[in-house]
Amino acid sequence: MTLNEALRALDALEKTLNAYGHAIGCLNYDGETVAPRNSAAARGETVGYLSGIVHEKITAPQTGEMLDAILAEADGLDLKTRRRAEELKRSRDELTLVPADEYMAYQQLMQEAMAVWHDAKLASDFAAYAPYLDRIIAFNRRLAARKAPDRPAYDALLDTYEKGLSHETLDPFFALLRKELTPVILEVAKRPRPDTAFLNQSWPIPAQREFTERLMDLLGLDRDDCAVGETEHPFTEGFNKHDVRITTHYHEDSVLSSMFSVIHEGGHALYELGVADELQGTCLAGGSSMSIHESQSRFYENIIGRSRPFCRALLPIMKTLFPAQMAGVDAEMLYRAACLSEPSLIRTEADELTYSIHVMIRYELEKAMIGGDLSTADIPGEWNRMYKEYLGVDVPDDRRGCLQDSHWSFGAIGYFPSYALGSAYGVQMLAAMEKDVDVWGCAAAGNLAPITAWLREKIHRHGQLLLPKQLLENACGAPFDPNCYVDYLKKKYGELYSL
Amino acid sequence: MTLNEALRALDALEKTLNAYGHAIGCLNYDGETVAPRNSAAARGETVGYLSGIVHEKITAPQTGEMLDAILAEADGLDLKTRRRAEELKRSRDELTLVPADEYMAYQQLMQEAMAVWHDAKLASDFAAYAPYLDRIIAFNRRLAARKAPDRPAYDALLDTYEKGLSHETLDPFFALLRKELTPVILEVAKRPRPDTAFLNQSWPIPAQREFTERLMDLLGLDRDDCAVGETEHPFTEGFNKHDVRITTHYHEDSVLSSMFSVIHEGGHALYELGVADELQGTCLAGGSSMSIHESQSRFYENIIGRSRPFCRALLPIMKTLFPAQMAGVDAEMLYRAACLSEPSLIRTEADELTYSIHVMIRYELEKAMIGGDLSTADIPGEWNRMYKEYLGVDVPDDRRGCLQDSHWSFGAIGYFPSYALGSAYGVQMLAAMEKDVDVWGCAAAGNLAPITAWLREKIHRHGQLLLPKQLLENACGAPFDPNCYVDYLKKKYGELYSL
Repeated sequence: MTLNEALRALDALEKTLNAYGHAIGCLNYDGETVAPRNSAAARGETVGYLSGIVHEKITAPQTGEMLDAILAEADGLDLKTRRRAEELKRSRDELTLVPADEYMAYQQLMQEAMAVWHDAKLASDFAAYAPYLDRIIAFNRRLAARKAPDRPAYDALLDTYEKGLSHETLDPFFALLRKELTPVILEVAKRPRPDTAFLNQSWPIPAQREFTERLMDLLGLDRDDCAVGETEHPFTEGFNKHDVRITTHYHEDSVLSSMFSVIHEGGHALYELGVADELQGTCLAGGSSMSIHESQSRFYENIIGRSRPFCRALLPIMKTLFPAQMAGVDAEMLYRAACLSEPSLIRTEADELTYSIHVMIRYELEKAMIGGDLSTADIPGEWNRMYKEYLGVDVPDDRRGCLQDSHWSFGAIGYFPSYALGSAYGVQMLAAMEKDVDVWGCAAAGNLAPITAWLREKIHRHGQLLLPKQLLENACGAPFDPNCYVDYLKKKYGELYSL
Repeated sequence: MTLNEALRALDALEKTLNAYGHAIGCLNYDGETVAPRNSAAARGETVGYLSGIVHEKITAPQTGEMLDAILAEADGLDLKTRRRAEELKRSRDELTLVPADEYMAYQQLMQEAMAVWHDAKLASDFAAYAPYLDRIIAFNRRLAARKAPDRPAYDALLDTYEKGLSHETLDPFFALLRKELTPVILEVAKRPRPDTAFLNQSWPIPAQREFTERLMDLLGLDRDDCAVGETEHPFTEGFNKHDVRITTHYHEDSVLSSMFSVIHEGGHALYELGVADELQGTCLAGGSSMSIHESQSRFYENIIGRSRPFCRALLPIMKTLFPAQMAGVDAEMLYRAACLSEPSLIRTEADELTYSIHVMIRYELEKAMIGGDLSTADIPGEWNRMYKEYLGVDVPDDRRGCLQDSHWSFGAIGYFPSYALGSAYGVQMLAAMEKDVDVWGCAAAGNLAPITAWLREKIHRHGQLLLPKQLLENACGAPFDPNCYVDYLKKKYGELYSL
């Protein structure tokens, strides 16, 4: 195969994968948002079938020959072409480890697992969900053993979400967080709790839906390119730069829950919407890694969203939409309520200071699950024990315990660390951004465009053109340093709680 | 190819077509309901690509050999196997007439046309839509010429929606309706108009959404199998008997608009949900023809929905959901308002008596468009002229004129007659049903289960196992007789307006 033939075959394969990816993504999104409950089995068959075609196309011998022909000339190729071939090769190497039948059955299993998880969470019924989780864990253990038989199994899964990530980075990272943050968390618990009484009111859902629209305006999310749905667990799905979806979940007894979900998912959406035109339709048209993706969502949610200046911008909007509930509330009260730090049960609603402890617990549990040291049946007990040990809270039921997150149901084991790592990446980006942009002036004015423009230039537009390590170093001008994150949290919460 | 090999190939092909059909249907449904506006172009590419695969599979020489091998043994086969092969052969014969590239481009065109139509309707801007409609008409004229070069072009399109249907049936059918109904319409116009003042109020959309839920309960639509969405133009999409979607459109100034849309689409949904288990996953798992499909939707919408007994069942529900608006309204007032007959602009909201005139106008326009006697640019003028001639109304803008329906945008030219024909089929089914079921006692009690059970037994469960003519004759015990429809309308409106 000549290089030119190979490059034409690469274009054609990407076009094909794009169509199947779009269809499968659409079926998934539909299943998560508006499909009737009994639709899961037939959707599982369809997604299984289409995934089988994707598997066949990627693992075909011709694809191997095509990639070999391109990568043999890697030195003479432009970066984009080389990276497209590298990323496809990475997918191919991983998919080749799983026989087609097993892969299709796994895709079908995840469709059913999502439906079962949804009901099991509402009913707080771990037993109903356990057989599905068991099979998902078993698949991932087999995959890890095939992928890197000589390394700890969990490392093989971490590598899927951020190439090269392993326990060698994460063990010391979480150890640092535990060591440095636990004393702060304990100190905070002794200080007077800020006045958050105004939060304990009823926040009508129609007004919350309108608030979502206003938040999307603030974030600069064009509704013609980005739609919003409602799901049990908020998420973002990006098909291309003109079709991104975010979802949220409204609770009548909380205004901050959906607010921070929308800002978080909006951060993911801005990343997908900001990938350069010339990468659209290629396999590079997504985030560089899940940690980089979470760096964007957590940046908007916490660094901007939970900042004093941005609370000043939010206040008049909230006063307009919730005049009775917000009567007598000023920006400082809103800021302190948004930053209330206390050990709690739900990761997605945790404050910045305790958040990474929630992630650390999942990291340790997943390591044990995938390492074979923790059986599925023992997950709830171990979950509850760790929440007690590290956060001092009693988990009243599995709905608010090990059933709270959807990730395992769609096979994402090894993903959670991305949230903590991404949070830390975001803080380091902030330090670099502050040199170029008046971040806090913009946040206070509710004008996030210069902030997004910086991130678009440094992060978004590159898609998967750069590997996460290089992307982060280019953006920040320095290698990753988790101490920046620790210092940021100590400073912010030290000031908030007069430590 | 042996018969057994051919039967296995048939199973495999149906499984494949099912997966692609599900994916394409899901992309379409998503596009019509929740997708952001700028998503149309990329969705068009994906749908075009996947449609190309469907085209390739159906037109493949092996498919021809397989169908030949099965149909050569047709006499020895069970009905289901024979009909599956016949229906696939029908699709194959039609698809073979269109080169793959042209077919894919047409699928993509329709995605774009739907998006353009949506905006053009809102802006009442026919000129923006005309180039798309022009290409859709051109495609259908070419298709008709290839399909039946010796017959009037429009007949070839009618045949797609009901096998064997042609102007030879429809010209006298519409002539009969015009002749018999026009004097009634003119007489009704001279009588006192019923008191419908209560309709001219504000009907809050949250309460209308709740009303939809109650109507779905009344219809026996299980929300676990049937979801509801919101679109500019209501429609039904059925993926399988556990996944059907209906949509509606809420207008704050009308309660009847969404109410009758939900009942109409609910009738379609009951058909899809009632197809027998053993036909699921085969190409027979849908309605026998579009006229039979519309017979079900129009049966529930008009024969049941616009009946005096059913209005008695609706009244307490409406009084609960709209206490202020329904104060002082009794069942007879509701019935007379629901049956208000007057020439109007919008087909989907037209009363039963004038409805088929709306359809007749579209029939004549389509015949002229496809016959080459009417250019696209002349459609609005001709539309408005016919509305004036046959219904005596002035069309104020294209939004309420030739842009009101979505059908042409998704390529459905030749579909409209199904609405009138289906309405007539439904009346004939009613006569047979009344011999077995206490239709009006059930309607008054809000208990539609025995009515649906009769339709399920006679119509729904058969899917496409029987051709429409045979299905109708089996259900009604007599061949189609349009006079039943005319007599029903004369009797109903004669009583309502004391003619």
